[in-house]
Amino acid sequence: MQIKNVTVAGSGVLGYQIAFQSAFKGFNVTVYDLSPDAIENAKKKFDVLSAKYAQDLAATPEQLAQTKANLSYSSDLKQATAHADLLIEAVPENLKIKIGFYNQLAEVAPAHTIFATNSSTLLPSQIAEATKRPKQFLALHFANDIGTHNTAEIMGHAQTDPHIFNQIVEFASAIGMIPLPLHKEQPGYILNTLLVPLLDAATELLVKEVADAPTIDKTWMVATGAPIGPCGILDIIGITTAYNIIKMSADATKDPLKLKTAAYLKTAFLDQNKLGVGTGEGFYTYPNPAFKDPNFLK
Amino acid sequence: MQIKNVTVAGSGVLGYQIAFQSAFKGFNVTVYDLSPDAIENAKKKFDVLSAKYAQDLAATPEQLAQTKANLSYSSDLKQATAHADLLIEAVPENLKIKIGFYNQLAEVAPAHTIFATNSSTLLPSQIAEATKRPKQFLALHFANDIGTHNTAEIMGHAQTDPHIFNQIVEFASAIGMIPLPLHKEQPGYILNTLLVPLLDAATELLVKEVADAPTIDKTWMVATGAPIGPCGILDIIGITTAYNIIKMSADATKDPLKLKTAAYLKTAFLDQNKLGVGTGEGFYTYPNPAFKDPNFLK
Repeated sequence: MQIKNVTVAGSGVLGYQIAFQSAFKGFNVTVYDLSPDAIENAKKKFDVLSAKYAQDLAATPEQLAQTKANLSYSSDLKQATAHADLLIEAVPENLKIKIGFYNQLAEVAPAHTIFATNSSTLLPSQIAEATKRPKQFLALHFANDIGTHNTAEIMGHAQTDPHIFNQIVEFASAIGMIPLPLHKEQPGYILNTLLVPLLDAATELLVKEVADAPTIDKTWMVATGAPIGPCGILDIIGITTAYNIIKMSADATKDPLKLKTAAYLKTAFLDQNKLGVGTGEGFYTYPNPAFKDPNFLK
Repeated sequence: MQIKNVTVAGSGVLGYQIAFQSAFKGFNVTVYDLSPDAIENAKKKFDVLSAKYAQDLAATPEQLAQTKANLSYSSDLKQATAHADLLIEAVPENLKIKIGFYNQLAEVAPAHTIFATNSSTLLPSQIAEATKRPKQFLALHFANDIGTHNTAEIMGHAQTDPHIFNQIVEFASAIGMIPLPLHKEQPGYILNTLLVPLLDAATELLVKEVADAPTIDKTWMVATGAPIGPCGILDIIGITTAYNIIKMSADATKDPLKLKTAAYLKTAFLDQNKLGVGTGEGFYTYPNPAFKDPNFLK
């Protein structure tokens, strides 16, 4: 079976980007969300995204018109999945909500439909049973701003059919993503497994007052040739997200350094609305952060 | 006091680079090593380095002649330090050897001489007492290939005089380094504090067979914009070094994953002489590793 018809469930931050990108690359995409209101909202976001694709990716008016034509909408799950070869699930990041969704989905979706979750923090094995088709279920994980950060981490669970896995690797390529296959379940996939320890080490240096953010980033940028250091990355991810992750871990472990780090992020950033790129200030000020100045590395 | 005369003790891998770079930037540099043989050997390495500076840094014949004129040599520690404003110690990375050296140095060096250690793994506080001048002692840590990787991490201990610390920050700038000041002692300085957890996470993914080296590096490069991923970095550092660090930690902690990682690096790399860039093969083959191919990120 070749994948032609894709249903994206959930039109939140990532869902609408995945839907738009898939439609942009020629797939028939049905956007499913709970209410007609949510769907109207998604349509508005598609207009913003169209303008962004025109500017950032030099998309032509014809391409964007075709993208729009490839998109349809439904708030009826049975109708939304009636012809789906692939359903990409991007509903809220909460195990209960996801399981509730898959229970419902399993009842209405055609037998051949592949289910893929975009979950960042849950493992496919935690959800597989609820899908009632574990062999046709796996994770397909996108990064935010997928038009430019075009990675797709693909991760099955023990029962995922290897043939289905490979189909999704091909699908990821077909929608312009760089497919990053994982051969075993791994919390945090590849990227967060690598990134979180680096960001933890950077905040540790800050909290211990070993060095300031520009010095830490400078060290990283000069030594590894990277265009951005860990504090700059934290500004992009958003300091609230970093805080939530560290707070959860600090509360669970009572580790003194983690507790201190959480308190530091709250006092120095959250309480002052310095949340990163989103609020115009975090470790740096935006839109022209110091680390982009050619004199920064001197 | 302004620093004019610099003595570099130890003409090994980093010592001779530090001496040459300081002389290249106009300082009077005395190279100290134990035997006339070691010194003859250093002189030969300076000729190789001259050619490299000419090619990589467009150094002129005049500059290189002046650099040579700025260098003098001695295997007599008293004579080598007679006029030293700063002594940079780059003797073998072993606490006993370093302490023995400082005991000897303390007896012969002028009272005003600042002592700076280039140690990668020891803390200044472990050595300070042996210097007999703890206020004038700190760490000045260079990266390998300092002509191009021009970072200098500067780290005092609790008793280091802040004025001396600032002088060394200025000296680092004066010899063309990017000074990276640390305000507290930190094992691994800034760079290794950041880098080691990233490299550990990457080898963990390999050993767990979650993903292969090119996929891991691709993920890192696409997501962070870096020109190289963790496996490529391991090839540069040298897989033997990575193995030694993990082996030491594995033996100390008996952590099953670390033991498995050490065994993996030994079997898959060390036993096959795949030691990284140095032997022409590691995770990649050199001089044209796959990750430098423009098609790698596809």
